Amino acid sequence: MSKVGVLGAGTWGCALAILLNDNGHEVTIWTKIENEAKALEASRDNLKNLPGAKLSNKIKINLNLEEVCTDKDLIVMAVASPYIRATANAAKPYIKQGQIIVNVSKGLEDSTLLTLSEVLEEEIPQADIAVLSGPTHAEEVSRQIPTTIVVGTTTKETAHFIQDIFMNDVFRVYTSPDIIGIELGGSLKNVIALAAGVIDGLGLGDNTKAALMTRGMAEISRLGMKMGGKLETFAGLSGMGDLFVTCTSKHSRNRNAGYLMGQGLTMEEAMKEVNQVVEGVNSAKAALTLARKYDVEMPIVEQINKVLFEGKTPKEALNDLLIRDKRTEYKSLEW
Amino acid sequence: MSKVGVLGAGTWGCALAILLNDNGHEVTIWTKIENEAKALEASRDNLKNLPGAKLSNKIKINLNLEEVCTDKDLIVMAVASPYIRATANAAKPYIKQGQIIVNVSKGLEDSTLLTLSEVLEEEIPQADIAVLSGPTHAEEVSRQIPTTIVVGTTTKETAHFIQDIFMNDVFRVYTSPDIIGIELGGSLKNVIALAAGVIDGLGLGDNTKAALMTRGMAEISRLGMKMGGKLETFAGLSGMGDLFVTCTSKHSRNRNAGYLMGQGLTMEEAMKEVNQVVEGVNSAKAALTLARKYDVEMPIVEQINKVLFEGKTPKEALNDLLIRDKRTEYKSLEW
Repeated sequence: MSKVGVLGAGTWGCALAILLNDNGHEVTIWTKIENEAKALEASRDNLKNLPGAKLSNKIKINLNLEEVCTDKDLIVMAVASPYIRATANAAKPYIKQGQIIVNVSKGLEDSTLLTLSEVLEEEIPQADIAVLSGPTHAEEVSRQIPTTIVVGTTTKETAHFIQDIFMNDVFRVYTSPDIIGIELGGSLKNVIALAAGVIDGLGLGDNTKAALMTRGMAEISRLGMKMGGKLETFAGLSGMGDLFVTCTSKHSRNRNAGYLMGQGLTMEEAMKEVNQVVEGVNSAKAALTLARKYDVEMPIVEQINKVLFEGKTPKEALNDLLIRDKRTEYKSLEW
Repeated sequence: MSKVGVLGAGTWGCALAILLNDNGHEVTIWTKIENEAKALEASRDNLKNLPGAKLSNKIKINLNLEEVCTDKDLIVMAVASPYIRATANAAKPYIKQGQIIVNVSKGLEDSTLLTLSEVLEEEIPQADIAVLSGPTHAEEVSRQIPTTIVVGTTTKETAHFIQDIFMNDVFRVYTSPDIIGIELGGSLKNVIALAAGVIDGLGLGDNTKAALMTRGMAEISRLGMKMGGKLETFAGLSGMGDLFVTCTSKHSRNRNAGYLMGQGLTMEEAMKEVNQVVEGVNSAKAALTLARKYDVEMPIVEQINKVLFEGKTPKEALNDLLIRDKRTEYKSLEW
């Protein structure tokens, strides 16, 4: 039995808190927002975003960051990406040397394009930062639907420690040393999901969507490898696996926003219609900036940026992708 | 303009003949079966398996193998995998030194577990053998739905030659030196598609299906790399890409047979219901034999074989997959 502090009371934080409590750990959720804590206390038996799941009374909810960070075997960082740096900065004084913190949020920091682990390392240098990511709809995890995920760490010992805490008969945790690869896969796949939605919206076929997903992931792998990630990781659970669930799910905001744009709506109209944050829009911008910084060819990312921000129609963008110069599948493979 | 002989008048052979004719080439289709030739001649405007597509009168249909093989720039091998060796053996006397033959069929030879290119090399050693494979539903190709595919060859020159012949504004051909990887991906992915169908039939979630597909492809990559293929290829169009279309399509026999087994039917009942050849059953057996021969761990392949041939229930098989020992995502990645 371990003591776990979960920072962030969103859907994923709650789903993981439920899982960790089921695994026999002592779990405390932290939220900064008093009303959120109250609402959560009131709805323990009837969670809005996790239908059918219950937040056991054994799971504490606490507004005091110091208390939630102190004397924990593991801290789970589950606040949304825009709030990671501020939360980490506020938590820093309460974090002991070597404290294991596992980030479960996806995204890059807008202003710096750092991965969230890199942000955590900057803010809490005394901590041992890990990442947990994969094809994991929160509502399925809370319903105990069989799920796999990968934990990336700087040491094998930390990997096994986190694997032991999370793993159970329906939640299978794999280990990996490739923190940066795992984070980039989970963050950048949203731009491909958005583009796959556009393909659906255009009413094209399975061939086109499979092409978009495969070649899209090839672009992300190219970029990610230049940034230090491994090809295996992009072919793995936090890359291809996460792309599968995002592209096939009817619940994906990224896919749905793309779908509407494929049907003829502008980016602004599609955003209004979906009425939620669409990470793919930001990750499209981020991927393009990184592509230029690392000098990596990313034609799909370029075209989706033109559709999003320059008024290019999806049909024109697709056409320009198809009539590009003839290519090899991977430059790394040579005769 | 090139002269192309297409051996085999099945759905894929016809779809590619239409594409090649559209590209301005002189195309002749060979079939051994007189009735098939007659039926095809009679239904040029109304192809049974390619609704909406027309087989132009410019495309010749010929029963004489010698005539179809002689004086061609390219021969496309499009007969079903069980007939490849006999067809190649019969064609051998008419094949000139250095003749480029591109195999577009998927599968392994049952008795030898050789790839179809390897069979062609054995039977027609004087030829230059290539392979063309990817996420390509034939009916979508014949409707000019944007499609990508990869051609694997032993030389860059042959790659560019075949790329030039097939490529057009809606059919994008990538090149690769990894013939064996391309063939193994396209052949073995059917066993994963079958297993993904089982997951659908069990009524589980997107998380489980994404896990099955990703970890399934990881197994195939492990085996394929031991056999000389490249990781890039299994992450590419003929691996992941082909798996995408097969697992998401409602038309996939492999997925549908798996679905019925997930719903509780035995393998024999599911086969009867689907009433067509289900390649995944043979590739499950082949993959298991290869796994043992090359000493590669393939837990999903093992379990699907137990479900197919030993009466194990899909639920038990899934459970045994989930409760295996804790693992790293890729043994090749080390701390």
